[in-house]
Amino acid sequence: MRILVSNDDGIDSIGIQVLAKYLGEIAEVTVVAPHKEQSAAGHSITMQVPLRISQYFRNGDFFGYAVDGTPADCVKIGIRNIMKTPPDLVVSGINHGSNTAINIIYSGTVSAAREAAIMDVPSVAVSITNTSIQNFDFAGKIAQIISKLVLSRDKDLPKGTLLNVNVPDLPQEEVRGILLTKQGKSKWDDVYEERKDPYGRNYYWLKGDLLELDKDLDTDQAAIRNKYVSVTPIHFDLTDYSTYEKMKNWELEKLFYETKL
Amino acid sequence: MRILVSNDDGIDSIGIQVLAKYLGEIAEVTVVAPHKEQSAAGHSITMQVPLRISQYFRNGDFFGYAVDGTPADCVKIGIRNIMKTPPDLVVSGINHGSNTAINIIYSGTVSAAREAAIMDVPSVAVSITNTSIQNFDFAGKIAQIISKLVLSRDKDLPKGTLLNVNVPDLPQEEVRGILLTKQGKSKWDDVYEERKDPYGRNYYWLKGDLLELDKDLDTDQAAIRNKYVSVTPIHFDLTDYSTYEKMKNWELEKLFYETKL
Repeated sequence: MRILVSNDDGIDSIGIQVLAKYLGEIAEVTVVAPHKEQSAAGHSITMQVPLRISQYFRNGDFFGYAVDGTPADCVKIGIRNIMKTPPDLVVSGINHGSNTAINIIYSGTVSAAREAAIMDVPSVAVSITNTSIQNFDFAGKIAQIISKLVLSRDKDLPKGTLLNVNVPDLPQEEVRGILLTKQGKSKWDDVYEERKDPYGRNYYWLKGDLLELDKDLDTDQAAIRNKYVSVTPIHFDLTDYSTYEKMKNWELEKLFYETKL
Repeated sequence: MRILVSNDDGIDSIGIQVLAKYLGEIAEVTVVAPHKEQSAAGHSITMQVPLRISQYFRNGDFFGYAVDGTPADCVKIGIRNIMKTPPDLVVSGINHGSNTAINIIYSGTVSAAREAAIMDVPSVAVSITNTSIQNFDFAGKIAQIISKLVLSRDKDLPKGTLLNVNVPDLPQEEVRGILLTKQGKSKWDDVYEERKDPYGRNYYWLKGDLLELDKDLDTDQAAIRNKYVSVTPIHFDLTDYSTYEKMKNWELEKLFYETKL
């Protein structure tokens, strides 16, 4: 088995080191990750400028390939140009900070896994809830066990669907279990703080708090709040089918004739 | 009525000029757009560095606010700090190039509109199929007519759902109508072309062709291929509900006990 490992915190982060270690116990691992931190990169890809690939060493040993691009770039170039043939699985993480609810939209970690899903390769995104992490080893173990699950059930997971995994930053004995969840509805109450630079000019810095809007216990955000590991199947078909059905009565065709007046 | 206008091609692009003109006929328009082109920015937001806002003039007249960030940044800071109170509508575009099928995932144009939807503001993304556009005025007219539709039916469109509009780059008399569509399945067959810089070092540039995988006529990609304007309702709930139901039999809880061994 071959696994491509990527992330959005950068190739020198602790999360990807732990992930590569635990996945290295079950498969041949190739690390392709951003040269620098790419948090909140979303699903951006680099087209206007070229990419470069460099070898990254840790304590004198070859660890993986660093790319001066986004998480999605890393997966794309990792599969197409570095691995040449698609791996059995792509795992992204372990992200420093949860990727639940609205954060899934902004997440570079999830986008790396989603790029794999777009390329028909099974994939998993793994995040841990705290940015100053205490319990990386448990998250590594969870990443390993979920990866084994996906590898063994790859025919049960449709192409284009990936698993988004969030692990509470708790000692293993305090974690209550693993829950199958849906993407939550919690979102940010944010604002740009206005500041002045040394020359008197304004600049604006984003800050905010996550509004806990998830009362239902079957959401990712509620699961981690209640000390469970959350596993959410997500895909990249953004069509709102329920609105699609309702809009059949909107008579768009009539509008078209108005443009001709 | 107040409309915030943004895009991903940058505040100096023709598309946003045409859009602001046509929407200016039906509402008070505030333009907040990226200082520079941000194509394929996806839904990235800027957190590690602050943003700056500058006034942008066209032919000596104030046109709008330029932000040195991504399309999603522009909508967020436009609503929170520039307009102060949410507008009635956000319209993003007119993008130079279609945003159908898998391109929706990478699109900065769609992300700008989606950021508005996240903030509970109705929104529309408008793109035209060609990058070297011939028929901007028809697209402007379509943007106006769809914007009026959304403003008049804002109670029928759920919060969090936006309309993704693609217009064929054809003279109006050759366009066959407006179709309600679903996100298509077409995707890129792409690869990074390996080149050498003047110093003999490798660099890699993304190139590819869109694989036309949409046979069904009710997709965005098929609509524009068949000379129709495409209107797709999309949202940001990425949960794959069908897989969620199937995974209830996966016994994730059992896996958890394996981690304890």
